[in-house]
Amino acid sequence: MERENPDQIAGRCIGIVGGMGPEAGVALSSKVIAETDSSSDSGHLPQILFSFPSLTPDRTAFITGEIKNNPGYIIADLIERLERAGATIAAIACNSAHAPQIFDLARRLMAEKGLKIELLHIIDETAHYLKERWPDISKVGILSTTGTYVTRLYDRLNSHEIETIWLSPKHQERLHSLIYHQDRGIKARAGRLGEEHREQLVQFMEIVAKKGAEAIVLGCTELPLAFGGEKMKGIPVVDPATATARALIRHISPEKLKKRV
Amino acid sequence: MERENPDQIAGRCIGIVGGMGPEAGVALSSKVIAETDSSSDSGHLPQILFSFPSLTPDRTAFITGEIKNNPGYIIADLIERLERAGATIAAIACNSAHAPQIFDLARRLMAEKGLKIELLHIIDETAHYLKERWPDISKVGILSTTGTYVTRLYDRLNSHEIETIWLSPKHQERLHSLIYHQDRGIKARAGRLGEEHREQLVQFMEIVAKKGAEAIVLGCTELPLAFGGEKMKGIPVVDPATATARALIRHISPEKLKKRV
Repeated sequence: MERENPDQIAGRCIGIVGGMGPEAGVALSSKVIAETDSSSDSGHLPQILFSFPSLTPDRTAFITGEIKNNPGYIIADLIERLERAGATIAAIACNSAHAPQIFDLARRLMAEKGLKIELLHIIDETAHYLKERWPDISKVGILSTTGTYVTRLYDRLNSHEIETIWLSPKHQERLHSLIYHQDRGIKARAGRLGEEHREQLVQFMEIVAKKGAEAIVLGCTELPLAFGGEKMKGIPVVDPATATARALIRHISPEKLKKRV
Repeated sequence: MERENPDQIAGRCIGIVGGMGPEAGVALSSKVIAETDSSSDSGHLPQILFSFPSLTPDRTAFITGEIKNNPGYIIADLIERLERAGATIAAIACNSAHAPQIFDLARRLMAEKGLKIELLHIIDETAHYLKERWPDISKVGILSTTGTYVTRLYDRLNSHEIETIWLSPKHQERLHSLIYHQDRGIKARAGRLGEEHREQLVQFMEIVAKKGAEAIVLGCTELPLAFGGEKMKGIPVVDPATATARALIRHISPEKLKKRV
């Protein structure tokens, strides 16, 4: 057979809602590849990534009331487009987009549109990942944008019997600025991050560690770009995107999930 | 206005044919972000990435006659799907896929399907990039897969008055193995590349430099993943994906193209 049937594309396929920020969507796609056990190109899993940053309102600005445009609308539209393009399971590469006022709207719109595609929840997948890898850990420190902070989004971990430790409002403001600063912030420096970003981030990690965190969740998709490790002074550092990537793989091809020790 | 019109998505939009290998598609998407001048998420450009590795026959295996299934069919299908999803300009994140027997078939099928989307040619964009940044360079060394090597794909640079320098068949075989080796190769180690890959690659760079190359083209999308620099002992190292990323940006929003000095 010389010709593939294009309809075969619509088997099981991963869909990623990117653009929030753009680098985070790409990073999730890359993590799916890194967590897939395959030694050849053809063993890797089908993926579609949609990244429309200019159409996607800032999540934190919506949550804090600065803007009125709910990102849930465009998220639901993109998930519809992902389904139409062949994706059967989707994830949103943005923590703040999982705030109930955004995520629940997206889910409701998906139901109204009659979509069949499944949508993962990044916090639930983080809980599963923590339970699987470090079953004894009961307290985790959360580093995030202010959007995630004010909604206490990661308190959803509490329902999985994991206690959450947050920064003080003053420290939170400084961390948000490390992510969002217009010239020096992690978002602005995408692709050109320096050691200074990592050092500043480690300072915030140390603060939550001192408060009793047994693991640290980098609860903003930009933060792992600046850190790039799995431990800080012996404390596990958890990237929710890795947890989500593994959940996506498990859905499509569980036998291809890379073993974690 | 609370609701974005989803049809607005179909303005100008970048489409990337990925999956060859999967990491190369993601890398091209990431380079579009890195080469875009924007300090906020919303200033970045719309992108759609399709990655269907299992449906995409190996390019080198087709070129060398090991398999009969022309990857041009699936490439044309994916470009059709990209257009349907809203993309207006596309690029293929794979050098070997630009071999005439593959690329010309894809272009012919695109015409038969009546597609309006534009498709860039990675080698022509590499020539434009070389001419723009280093107008005095007239000889470049080419490091590539054997698929690209046997088709002498980069000799297309000759029509832009750039001479090409290739490895000997024996060295080429070793370079191909560095990319494709089932356990230790760059493709197999995607996301976990070590210093040893870089060191081996530099040895091949030195070989073409000794033969008179004034710049080195990393003519396989996996090679820049292993190198990650812009110069080797003062000699410019050119990543065709960067050239392609810049051409994509120029097409969509020339004013957002990051300045190169």
